[in-house]
Amino acid sequence: MKTLYWKDGQLYLLDQTLLPHEVEYLVCGTYQDVIRAIQSMVVRGAPAIGVAAAFAMALADLAGDDLEKAAQEIRAARPTAVNLAWAVDRVLNSDSAVEEALKMYQEDQDTNRAMGKQGAEIISDGDTILTHCNAGALACVDYGTALGVVRAAHEEGKNVKVICDETRPVLQGARLSVWEMQEEGIPVKLIVDGAAGRLMQEGEVDKVIIGADRVAQGGVANKIGSLMVALAAHRFGVPFYVAAPKSTFDHENSIYEIEIEERNPEEVLNFAGCRVAPLLTEVRNPSFDVVPADLITGIITEKGIMKPF
Amino acid sequence: MKTLYWKDGQLYLLDQTLLPHEVEYLVCGTYQDVIRAIQSMVVRGAPAIGVAAAFAMALADLAGDDLEKAAQEIRAARPTAVNLAWAVDRVLNSDSAVEEALKMYQEDQDTNRAMGKQGAEIISDGDTILTHCNAGALACVDYGTALGVVRAAHEEGKNVKVICDETRPVLQGARLSVWEMQEEGIPVKLIVDGAAGRLMQEGEVDKVIIGADRVAQGGVANKIGSLMVALAAHRFGVPFYVAAPKSTFDHENSIYEIEIEERNPEEVLNFAGCRVAPLLTEVRNPSFDVVPADLITGIITEKGIMKPF
Repeated sequence: MKTLYWKDGQLYLLDQTLLPHEVEYLVCGTYQDVIRAIQSMVVRGAPAIGVAAAFAMALADLAGDDLEKAAQEIRAARPTAVNLAWAVDRVLNSDSAVEEALKMYQEDQDTNRAMGKQGAEIISDGDTILTHCNAGALACVDYGTALGVVRAAHEEGKNVKVICDETRPVLQGARLSVWEMQEEGIPVKLIVDGAAGRLMQEGEVDKVIIGADRVAQGGVANKIGSLMVALAAHRFGVPFYVAAPKSTFDHENSIYEIEIEERNPEEVLNFAGCRVAPLLTEVRNPSFDVVPADLITGIITEKGIMKPF
Repeated sequence: MKTLYWKDGQLYLLDQTLLPHEVEYLVCGTYQDVIRAIQSMVVRGAPAIGVAAAFAMALADLAGDDLEKAAQEIRAARPTAVNLAWAVDRVLNSDSAVEEALKMYQEDQDTNRAMGKQGAEIISDGDTILTHCNAGALACVDYGTALGVVRAAHEEGKNVKVICDETRPVLQGARLSVWEMQEEGIPVKLIVDGAAGRLMQEGEVDKVIIGADRVAQGGVANKIGSLMVALAAHRFGVPFYVAAPKSTFDHENSIYEIEIEERNPEEVLNFAGCRVAPLLTEVRNPSFDVVPADLITGIITEKGIMKPF
């Protein structure tokens, strides 16, 4: 099953807001459809957002839309992941929008397999890996970044177990990562986000691997909650890795200067359609954390494992 | 509104599983009723559990039950909060069970007011206080421990704002602490548990104050998630206080030796009645964290502010 695919001039997106209860694809015929899908998190995860954005450009091209204008709107769909701008610029500078998007679609899968192979070297037989959010197949075209490393180790015959933070507010851990690991036959346990520290204190976690929305000077931006997981790993001596393709790297900016998206309060006030807080409750809902470089053991890329910069 | 009260030989418990949507009291006529209410978290919070346990002993006494047997069953209702055993033993060693329970009911309120006054000294005008779980009026007979400190500062005319972690899995922050602060007219914002680190990194938190289920040698046990909040406070130089009455102190044991309750997986798999993870998902659900002493700035008690031991 692919997170997204291109067929007969349309983009099909696996609707991740409905998982794991329903498996349904949303069909996008215009680039505006794709923007709405990115904003509402039908498709999410930095690499998947990048490839979806490339196909959005392809849709704009096929429709004869103003490509510069489309590019500007697509880039603005979500501010934190750098892959969005990277993908749009690649298509904009290519000869054929559709061909470039299809090329990126294939590259994403090759990159993740290469990254998985690189990352599997740090996994020992019997390891329990804690992950936050979903940096799996569903965050990419297929295979995944952080969970791609787990998959590669599993394919090499190593016994690995996974602990998933549920990852409030949108529950990508509970809904997506747990589901992916179950489908793969990899043993997985679910915890609330607040329990990660306790499990590390008790020695139940061998390594942490998360994905990244942007790797920049001084650290990494990733899903809210990642910072406290990194602090707990640091305290209890658990190696903390980030798995991210080079397309997630931003060598221009400091991680402290990038925009951190603040999302709709309703994500916090509700849970799977149930209201959980009193009416008129004020909310802060930053969607991403900044994990400082000194808390990161290494960054797993398709080219090898490197230090943060 | 009281969290619990005694009337005509029965114990009335404000049903905290229904808040903030419904305000209803559960009437307990036997000590077994109270045990079930403690286990199902109709009443929760270490001080409130202590007083409820005292009244459970009073109910056993009035019914002519075997008091030693009742004491043993009540002590075992939940393992982590030390107030439960403390309260049961006090009633067991008293001349009149009902009178002793009523005395503890009054003492709890006096203690919290005294603690609030002590703690208010560390609050500056304009402070934003982050809290985790509910250590408020609803965790006690009235007024609260951590939120009692906030109330006292507010009553002294200081401008204080509160940020509440929602506190998965049972959402005591979103459902109870937010509601209490709104009722009191104290400005309050709600965040997911994973966002506490980000807000401290951004300098938006002046102090953290939490409650405690047990203060013992080497640190404090409190609601799951407290440890990662403490680590973030430590990293970003935010003073981290625990507000706890002396009845929560355990001078006999190391905090690392006490039993940490593991609760029902359904708390994690469901959210306000909605299932959020795939069927047959395995879960770890430790209910409490151990916060090491070196992360704690001070413990606010009814007798003054002290260092952890």
